[in-house]
Amino acid sequence: MPYPETGTGFMIHSQKEWTNFKKGEFKLKQFEDRDVDIAIECCGVCASDLHTINGGWGDAPMPLCVGHEVVGKAVKVGKDVKTIKVGDRVEQQQPSNLKTNLTCSNCAADQENYCPNAIDTYGAPYSDGTISQGGYSSHIRVHEYFAFKIPENIPSAVAAPMLCAGLTVYSPLTRLGAGPGKKVAILGLGGLGHFAVMWAVALGAEVYVLSHSPSKKEDAMKMGAKEFIVTGEENWFKPYAFTFDFIINSTDATHKFNLPNYFSTLKVMGRFHNVGFGDQPLPSIKAQDFAANMSSIGSSHIGNRPEMLAMLDLASKQDIKSWIEEIPISEEGCAKAVTKVAENNVRYRCVLTNFDAAFGQRS
Amino acid sequence: MPYPETGTGFMIHSQKEWTNFKKGEFKLKQFEDRDVDIAIECCGVCASDLHTINGGWGDAPMPLCVGHEVVGKAVKVGKDVKTIKVGDRVEQQQPSNLKTNLTCSNCAADQENYCPNAIDTYGAPYSDGTISQGGYSSHIRVHEYFAFKIPENIPSAVAAPMLCAGLTVYSPLTRLGAGPGKKVAILGLGGLGHFAVMWAVALGAEVYVLSHSPSKKEDAMKMGAKEFIVTGEENWFKPYAFTFDFIINSTDATHKFNLPNYFSTLKVMGRFHNVGFGDQPLPSIKAQDFAANMSSIGSSHIGNRPEMLAMLDLASKQDIKSWIEEIPISEEGCAKAVTKVAENNVRYRCVLTNFDAAFGQRS
Repeated sequence: MPYPETGTGFMIHSQKEWTNFKKGEFKLKQFEDRDVDIAIECCGVCASDLHTINGGWGDAPMPLCVGHEVVGKAVKVGKDVKTIKVGDRVEQQQPSNLKTNLTCSNCAADQENYCPNAIDTYGAPYSDGTISQGGYSSHIRVHEYFAFKIPENIPSAVAAPMLCAGLTVYSPLTRLGAGPGKKVAILGLGGLGHFAVMWAVALGAEVYVLSHSPSKKEDAMKMGAKEFIVTGEENWFKPYAFTFDFIINSTDATHKFNLPNYFSTLKVMGRFHNVGFGDQPLPSIKAQDFAANMSSIGSSHIGNRPEMLAMLDLASKQDIKSWIEEIPISEEGCAKAVTKVAENNVRYRCVLTNFDAAFGQRS
Repeated sequence: MPYPETGTGFMIHSQKEWTNFKKGEFKLKQFEDRDVDIAIECCGVCASDLHTINGGWGDAPMPLCVGHEVVGKAVKVGKDVKTIKVGDRVEQQQPSNLKTNLTCSNCAADQENYCPNAIDTYGAPYSDGTISQGGYSSHIRVHEYFAFKIPENIPSAVAAPMLCAGLTVYSPLTRLGAGPGKKVAILGLGGLGHFAVMWAVALGAEVYVLSHSPSKKEDAMKMGAKEFIVTGEENWFKPYAFTFDFIINSTDATHKFNLPNYFSTLKVMGRFHNVGFGDQPLPSIKAQDFAANMSSIGSSHIGNRPEMLAMLDLASKQDIKSWIEEIPISEEGCAKAVTKVAENNVRYRCVLTNFDAAFGQRS
């Protein structure tokens, strides 16, 4: 059965062979009245895709098509959809749907990204029994609440990585107060980190980039950082005692860090905030490690709809562009992209493109 | 040499014999122009005293006199002292002094409890080479910034435990926003926890006490708790998903906890805040353990001078009384008190009293 019953995607069949993408069909969930179907034009490659297909975050239903930074054209809208029209260029945010249709107390408080009933973009069961499938594919079906019109001056491939990577850092930056007069440290300059630097600068904060080697210094300064601090140097933290309002840790190698050194650079009540999730636990921590400055450690999960709209508006108005590497989608292209992520060898986000060549013209 | 060159105290000589208190003399630091000498009337017994003398928090200089919840009468004031007169009934807050005389950026911002140059009340070296000694003793010499007049309607033995235990929870309660409309969970009902319940209730919050057994339920309800939750029961946390604005963890047994269960009871952006510091690290944590609600874990260290004044004012106006067990000070009395703390067998704070019998009338 072709679309609209199915989508076609590049899928993984075993976590033991996580570079072995095979083109195949998958069933789409039942179409509902607030759903939007998107014919996909491009899709960003997130570290979550890697951690899911290689088993780092645990089991996943197989076969699976990953990808949750999806941009394309709306080709079908349900009868109750109000924010999207057929033909609109839209993007899809993770999650794709909610079991409770935005009725829970978190959703009611604009905290739908913390809804316990969220259905992830890929690998999650819908009530009709289908498993959600991601954006390395021809089509995606999404509740309109998680679909957004893209401002005209943001190209599709540039917009794609904003949907997960961009929002994942934009949300905590604004919730933790990034703005004029604030000193914000961004730890790690990768897909997440490069957005964190650009957004924090755009929001008016003074931005310090912390990285284990000096290799990305030039890029960081181009993105607007005030200072680049090499954490591979002994005693790097000593000149920065009580300096930062908060740290956004975008790395997934936190298990290798001496956390108290990082905590020592925080102002009183500062926060070490994680947005990169490794496969391993944090280093051992004592409660008293936070006591010298009332600091804390935490993390967050993507952002809400108002934050997505504000982020896209900021990017549009200040003409902020993701730093991307485009890779035409194919079995080989998907393998190349996730391998680059695994090798930490992307500056700063891979985006799969040329979907028409792989899936045909779909609208 | 007698006072004013020395004090007399009940001292520990080896961390291996942490109940073997011996009465002896110690040298007081050089008297400076903003110093106040206090003839001690009573002293609370804090878990910090135990962790210091038994080596749980590491080495300590010996011999050592502990105790940092000190109440007594001012018997001598330096020529620049403005807030205290000879004869005032005063209390001494930890730390006793600062190397930098309140000039650092934290002190300038009313964050002197996070001054990196603080000199702890006991076991810390002064610039003149003396080691600070605590309040299981006849006299203490303290910078006036850390000495406070006690409101008349608070008895001395009731005031003593407020100085460390009381302030240690009052400060984070107010900084984290305890007040009307907030749901605050207090984990553990001991010296710290019983103050946390009473202050949070007095500040207008709805207070939930979490304890491993039901044994303290009646006390908690008398202190004003709305609900008592027994964490020893399976799935105790499930009815409380996304409920608490924050948790104050006053226990020092956190290494035994399943932290994600506790985190799950926090509202979005809620905090699991530690004020009890065990000898062991926290349980292993993953960064993603906080992601379901953007929660965090942190800790704090006592409170600042404005918070101390506000706390005493609250206690005075609402007639809040510490729940104490008085023990006359002596070699045996000190041993009995720290043993009760070690055995978690105090409801809810020991206070050493009858100092005149041990040290003679001193003013």
